[in-house]
Amino acid sequence: MTYCIAIHVNEGLAFLSDSRTNAGVDQLSTYSKMFTFGVSGERSIVILTAGNLATTQAVIKTIRKNIADSEQENLLSVGSMDAAAAHVGQLNFEQQSKQVNQAAGSSLDISATFIVGGQIKGSMPELFLVYAEGNFIAATEQTPYQQIGEVKYGKPILDRIITPDTPLRNAALCGLVSMDSTMRSNATVGPPIEILLYQRDSFRLQTRIRYERDDPYFLSLRRAWERELARSFSALPPLVLN
Amino acid sequence: MTYCIAIHVNEGLAFLSDSRTNAGVDQLSTYSKMFTFGVSGERSIVILTAGNLATTQAVIKTIRKNIADSEQENLLSVGSMDAAAAHVGQLNFEQQSKQVNQAAGSSLDISATFIVGGQIKGSMPELFLVYAEGNFIAATEQTPYQQIGEVKYGKPILDRIITPDTPLRNAALCGLVSMDSTMRSNATVGPPIEILLYQRDSFRLQTRIRYERDDPYFLSLRRAWERELARSFSALPPLVLN
Repeated sequence: MTYCIAIHVNEGLAFLSDSRTNAGVDQLSTYSKMFTFGVSGERSIVILTAGNLATTQAVIKTIRKNIADSEQENLLSVGSMDAAAAHVGQLNFEQQSKQVNQAAGSSLDISATFIVGGQIKGSMPELFLVYAEGNFIAATEQTPYQQIGEVKYGKPILDRIITPDTPLRNAALCGLVSMDSTMRSNATVGPPIEILLYQRDSFRLQTRIRYERDDPYFLSLRRAWERELARSFSALPPLVLN
Repeated sequence: MTYCIAIHVNEGLAFLSDSRTNAGVDQLSTYSKMFTFGVSGERSIVILTAGNLATTQAVIKTIRKNIADSEQENLLSVGSMDAAAAHVGQLNFEQQSKQVNQAAGSSLDISATFIVGGQIKGSMPELFLVYAEGNFIAATEQTPYQQIGEVKYGKPILDRIITPDTPLRNAALCGLVSMDSTMRSNATVGPPIEILLYQRDSFRLQTRIRYERDDPYFLSLRRAWERELARSFSALPPLVLN
């Protein structure tokens, strides 16, 4: 499994991804699920991936090939983030169709989902969840984040903390807590954790952080959150028994 | 969907269940998912249910019928909690087999899962998760709780707070926080919330609480947890950017 989060706040976009892939419990590997594309000063686009690794790798490879070949439609030529999401959705659909034929009769799940976020000069930053079917939805003020993969364990903390006014750095921190909760409750999500921050109107993907399992800051964060949760819990009004 | 939790601590057992059932989003109803059986001073057994309502109702009805008919094998005659779980598993399997035949060709999911917990004189309290297939697993010191239904949203807080030494009342409080997190992130889990506490060696199911959506204590708990989480989050070490 996988867990990726992208958060859209007024200050910009925060992207987080784990790096564990597994085909069965005895075939664990580490692959980055975060891919960046851009033209400095003009556009910055980040893609997070979940699902079948063969499908996601084929999609990313085709995105790069289309850019290298200067195809009419590619991530560096599209006029809007909407068109960028549609492009990824189209490639996702094509790759799955191809692999479905090859995998016909097997029970292999070749589906994949993507988060596509970023900003193109002249527009505001945007964030999309691209479904296996190729269609997509945008993050909004009411739902200022998108998740793919193992999304449920880490959702409550996002629902409680994130608003459009949350500072970008805090949004990323909340994403990291959400990631930690997920890793603790589910063995198929694992480090290294990658974080990327995009400041609105910067058109540069500047801050990229990578935490290994034993990173001192990440360990101190885990311990602090554990301690704070226990303290929070002990501060609750005791259960009223009748 | 449904969310039920049972927690096994040294002091006893805590059971929690929501009361929402839905067959499609336009067919929401309220049904209790908590059922108690016992002989005062000799045995106390609690069953929590999730899954197809026709199946769970048929299983509970048959459990009651077997007791009323003084069948050789019934919940008030079995010699161990293990046998109680096996009895529920057997009835679950039988009811599903019957309904599978009737529902043949439809895509209806008739499966159900149960939590069976309690104590029979001469033994320690025990807690079992009964699968749709009729087999079952016990809660242990390492995993001192069982969940059925929509289990992921509320798992992180249980993993962090519950140990065998947790006081029973705090275990129930933690279950209530877990329930609240789930209700907030998932619309198919809803009040009233029922809580039942069983003190070890009491052989009486004494304390049963029911919280409606607007219960003053439940509302104050939700607000307090929200406030405490925000405070906890603000106390975390800030993200280290390179």
